[in-house]
Amino acid sequence: MIKAEKLRALHHGPEILVLPNAWDCASARIFEELGFPAIATTSAGVAFSLGYADGQNIPGKEMLAAVARIARSVDVPVTADLEGGYGDIGETAAALLESGAVGLNLEDILGHGPESLASIDEQVSRIARVRKTGVVVNARTDLYLMRIGDDATRFDRASERLKAYRDAGADCLFIPGIASEDLIARFVDVLECPINILAVAGTPAIARLKELGVARVSVGSGMMRSAMGHTRRIAEGLKNTGRFEEMIEGSIPYAEANALF
Amino acid sequence: MIKAEKLRALHHGPEILVLPNAWDCASARIFEELGFPAIATTSAGVAFSLGYADGQNIPGKEMLAAVARIARSVDVPVTADLEGGYGDIGETAAALLESGAVGLNLEDILGHGPESLASIDEQVSRIARVRKTGVVVNARTDLYLMRIGDDATRFDRASERLKAYRDAGADCLFIPGIASEDLIARFVDVLECPINILAVAGTPAIARLKELGVARVSVGSGMMRSAMGHTRRIAEGLKNTGRFEEMIEGSIPYAEANALF
Repeated sequence: MIKAEKLRALHHGPEILVLPNAWDCASARIFEELGFPAIATTSAGVAFSLGYADGQNIPGKEMLAAVARIARSVDVPVTADLEGGYGDIGETAAALLESGAVGLNLEDILGHGPESLASIDEQVSRIARVRKTGVVVNARTDLYLMRIGDDATRFDRASERLKAYRDAGADCLFIPGIASEDLIARFVDVLECPINILAVAGTPAIARLKELGVARVSVGSGMMRSAMGHTRRIAEGLKNTGRFEEMIEGSIPYAEANALF
Repeated sequence: MIKAEKLRALHHGPEILVLPNAWDCASARIFEELGFPAIATTSAGVAFSLGYADGQNIPGKEMLAAVARIARSVDVPVTADLEGGYGDIGETAAALLESGAVGLNLEDILGHGPESLASIDEQVSRIARVRKTGVVVNARTDLYLMRIGDDATRFDRASERLKAYRDAGADCLFIPGIASEDLIARFVDVLECPINILAVAGTPAIARLKELGVARVSVGSGMMRSAMGHTRRIAEGLKNTGRFEEMIEGSIPYAEANALF
């Protein structure tokens, strides 16, 4: 469990933990080579690469196999986005450790929509089960991302949940769907626990997030969708111009790509 | 076998068959949406995405599972780069058909280097076995790519092999490692069979390849390595600037990425 302790410590270091989420072994090795100290996975990116829409459509077994491949490819700690946990969370956490990964994101949405929001008690018990295995828990609430309930009471409802998740042993609290500096600062203030912000359009730059007290920032499927956009542009260019230069320029040479593995 | 006939016919159509090889379901769906009439896979790209160096290191089972995922994701015909065939080629071809793909590339290098070059008789018998299953065969010689034997006799040796592969039932003859217009034209002239050119730096543009009589052009791991180069640039930029704009600009929006599946 040395890697789990390494990952845990990265939430309390002098630097904000920046995680450009990987979706396959190539992206994971590229991020590791650039010096990122840990690799997070993106459940949406893994789903797209394996042929599924995002949102708990991929069988847990396939997601865990993808995580295991990534964990075998890198030396740094790997933390996996496992959506709602794919059924029995204790079994999922054990399989995760077996795969060589040491951390996971755990959502409080168990199914496909807001109506599948776990009760606080249920989610607390799930977090405690995972924490007991030694896995580093990034406990996520979807109240903001899915805009669940009244806007006016969302901060209080989210804070209540996240404090309970923290007290159940969560190592970090993940609040995707917030980007305003005020809101981020209020959560840092009341939660007294490392928090994870998801970078989207409008998210403050990393230096500002650090000033606000954010411990961890990740990009979800952002990197994968950026690579997908690039792939589409290059393939469309090839179709329209019939020329290969744009594809070749800026590509990683074959020998260098091969040497990543 | 309707898809096999479709793929076969694309080698004899009015248009040159352009295949920007896919390495996962996301790239395959992107290429299909752009209107490419078939999807080829790249063995190097699939290997990188699953954590292996190129060159017959990936277990055949894992390669076939990746091909099956891609074949499940698209409606157009899928042709797979299966390197040297991963052991018993008849079994591999049967498993390929089972997966929903209908074509394969078959190299005459069976192991890791030039010394593993199959004899013409052996390769002819392997091609005939695959052809009997109905799979569309893109028979490849590595004499140029691996610079096997004397330069002075390479054209004659390659021609002798490729004619034998053609007579054994190959649907297309793949000669990676040649880029000069003269050489391409000479092969078109003597082989009297559709030929496949691998696009690398210096390869003539598609319109010119078509004029030269080339039936099929593919890019090997070119698209995957282009996407890897992009991923590295964006992640390095994120590390250096702490800003997310570059990642977000030009990315495929989440809803659109999700709708591919």
